[in-house]
Amino acid sequence: MPRNALYAQSGGVTSVINASASALILAARTHSAHIDHVYAGRNGIVGALDEDLIDTNLESSEAITALAHTPGGAFGSCRHKLRSPQDNEAEYKRLIDVFKAHDIGYFFYNGGGDSMDTANKVSGYAASLGLDVKSVGVPKTIDNDLPITDCCPGFGSAAKYIAVSTSEVALDVASMCATSTKLFVLEVMGRHAGWLAAAAGLAGRGPNDAPQIILFPEVPFDKTRFLARVEQSIAENGYCVVVVSEGVRDRDGKFLSERGTRDSFGHAQLGGAGPAVAELVQEALGLKYHWAVADYMQRSARHLASATDVAQAKALGEAAVELAVQGETGVMPTIERVSDDPYEWRIGKARLEDVANVEKTMPNDFVSEDGFGISEAARTYLNPLIAGEDYPAYHQGLPRWAVLKRISVARKLASRAP
Amino acid sequence: MPRNALYAQSGGVTSVINASASALILAARTHSAHIDHVYAGRNGIVGALDEDLIDTNLESSEAITALAHTPGGAFGSCRHKLRSPQDNEAEYKRLIDVFKAHDIGYFFYNGGGDSMDTANKVSGYAASLGLDVKSVGVPKTIDNDLPITDCCPGFGSAAKYIAVSTSEVALDVASMCATSTKLFVLEVMGRHAGWLAAAAGLAGRGPNDAPQIILFPEVPFDKTRFLARVEQSIAENGYCVVVVSEGVRDRDGKFLSERGTRDSFGHAQLGGAGPAVAELVQEALGLKYHWAVADYMQRSARHLASATDVAQAKALGEAAVELAVQGETGVMPTIERVSDDPYEWRIGKARLEDVANVEKTMPNDFVSEDGFGISEAARTYLNPLIAGEDYPAYHQGLPRWAVLKRISVARKLASRAP
Repeated sequence: MPRNALYAQSGGVTSVINASASALILAARTHSAHIDHVYAGRNGIVGALDEDLIDTNLESSEAITALAHTPGGAFGSCRHKLRSPQDNEAEYKRLIDVFKAHDIGYFFYNGGGDSMDTANKVSGYAASLGLDVKSVGVPKTIDNDLPITDCCPGFGSAAKYIAVSTSEVALDVASMCATSTKLFVLEVMGRHAGWLAAAAGLAGRGPNDAPQIILFPEVPFDKTRFLARVEQSIAENGYCVVVVSEGVRDRDGKFLSERGTRDSFGHAQLGGAGPAVAELVQEALGLKYHWAVADYMQRSARHLASATDVAQAKALGEAAVELAVQGETGVMPTIERVSDDPYEWRIGKARLEDVANVEKTMPNDFVSEDGFGISEAARTYLNPLIAGEDYPAYHQGLPRWAVLKRISVARKLASRAP
Repeated sequence: MPRNALYAQSGGVTSVINASASALILAARTHSAHIDHVYAGRNGIVGALDEDLIDTNLESSEAITALAHTPGGAFGSCRHKLRSPQDNEAEYKRLIDVFKAHDIGYFFYNGGGDSMDTANKVSGYAASLGLDVKSVGVPKTIDNDLPITDCCPGFGSAAKYIAVSTSEVALDVASMCATSTKLFVLEVMGRHAGWLAAAAGLAGRGPNDAPQIILFPEVPFDKTRFLARVEQSIAENGYCVVVVSEGVRDRDGKFLSERGTRDSFGHAQLGGAGPAVAELVQEALGLKYHWAVADYMQRSARHLASATDVAQAKALGEAAVELAVQGETGVMPTIERVSDDPYEWRIGKARLEDVANVEKTMPNDFVSEDGFGISEAARTYLNPLIAGEDYPAYHQGLPRWAVLKRISVARKLASRAP
């Protein structure tokens, strides 16, 4: 007898998380002997806990196909981390009640490190109760910080957006610098790791190409050296393009700009490293500057997605279904790099217990010797991830996003205790 | 005998100013009976005054063709306004000396309102000396504030970037708002007029579609009404997307955020209206927020250019050459709208004296009654301007920009007095 599947999106969305959802749902439809309905948690795991489920079987195949080029999280995502069953068994019990009520035999959790941890705990908790629930993680994060997998879906597209945008603004600044803006600062995401900042380095090749300076979270900010490099760049090029990660800190570990607020995971909420750096240069050198903060634009810019990233997001969604119907649980499909150039990759598999709560940092040798750029090793790694374009269809100047009905599944349980 | 032409780019560049340059140079090459060399001022009119000219005839037709999809100002632009011949005749004399030394019979000035004023004065000054110099303006400005022409090249592409980006981030915010960011603010350019902010309105249609609030420079900022609208949007949608023009002011005419510095034209240099609005909401309502500032990205995003805009930029560059070789001077080709839907346009012509120093403001009826959105009249005007995509070719994940040699023309004059 086929059983139902629960799919949930988690954490910060990406421009290709829906491509994974699309491929996963379409793959499940080809496995009707194993999977009947694919339910999606409305707003992720919170919807699962609230028994607020969307029946994706009621969506047309056209709509599900269109999801593959639609950014955001189509069923809603959330920042809600389940603690361990020891710390908060009530949540796990509730989740299992929902699973039982809706005959959930497959749980697909599409997220980053915290989510892989949750998927692993769900797998273990279900097994401890003797329940047959295949729990499979689907990787997703623009932060590219999951271990084992060569890269994470969402990263390549954000990286492409940053590389292309840096390349474009550099042409703008270069053409005006003789009489106008001499310093341009672009702030990009990356709380702990400089993967996204590194991607900006793909915009140039030579030592004088923009971006002339990248500020990585991995390299403590040294104001004196930084200002000297800005002056040098302006002397040599007439201008300086700086790409700064939101996560840059000084030697004391203090963020260049910290709002002081924290998100629901207890992470510091950042923002403003770009203007902070620009103003610091303005004070010291008195230059005309401009700054931009890409913020959510970089993780939702589906109009400039990497074709490689889209293909991998889809392949991982499909692979998750294949693993689950083969009876695997507590696993996550991964990207295995077979070769750099020509770039070849295949789908691999990791144990969730090996993925959970391990943050992959950027290799030290990805940063150039002076600390302000990227190395050849970084280029070799990053180049293929931004390769290829995958444009959405447009109508009257705007992309045609998927339109979903998002019809709720009838509730079978009482509301959960508040 | 054919004579030489001088082409100069002026003011803030756009993602399609080089498309005008490309078409103008290619058109000039077909008029060899009239035009011999097309020289480009290096860094715009400053290069013309410094006798620092680039010989575009030494660029391959492949390179000039590739210019059509390359952002920035390929020959350099500048912010330098020539005063009137009465106030600073030395500059005009110098320009005429350069014209004479290099047998310049055609002057093409590619810029905004200030530049059209300069082109007009050059035309008049040359005529007053009995010189045969055809001076023709080529419109360009993302601000869309030139009169007579229906629209300005550069605007449509920036508008498309803003509309698409708003549409994308809205999907991102909507998918996370249940547990995360509830307010998203995108700051766009537009010092005096809300044309670019209005473009964001194309991202949604219904009253609850994002952007739920647009803050126009034309509408004095009213904190109480604004906060009420934010609260209403969050109550109805769970989130609120605000697009704010950098030029928004309060009832006393004070910019929401003003750096206090001024550019070389004496205009206040703005920036930070986005974070200012976000923080204002945070203080009043205590919501989790994010903000982005598009800054130069919106005017250099050639990867998302409007095909309509590119076609018009090219047509205006070509038309400038046609006007000049027909013996016209003191004119600017324009875009005339023939019909809205289906959109049809043709090239018209305006006298530079009618264009110079007249700023076209956004019609009052483009703002919706509540002051926070756009009207149907605005949609009718804006829709066709963002229509169509015109992608650059990519190689290894990045656009292939034009590569120019930019070979200098041998100087014939002494350096100008400092």
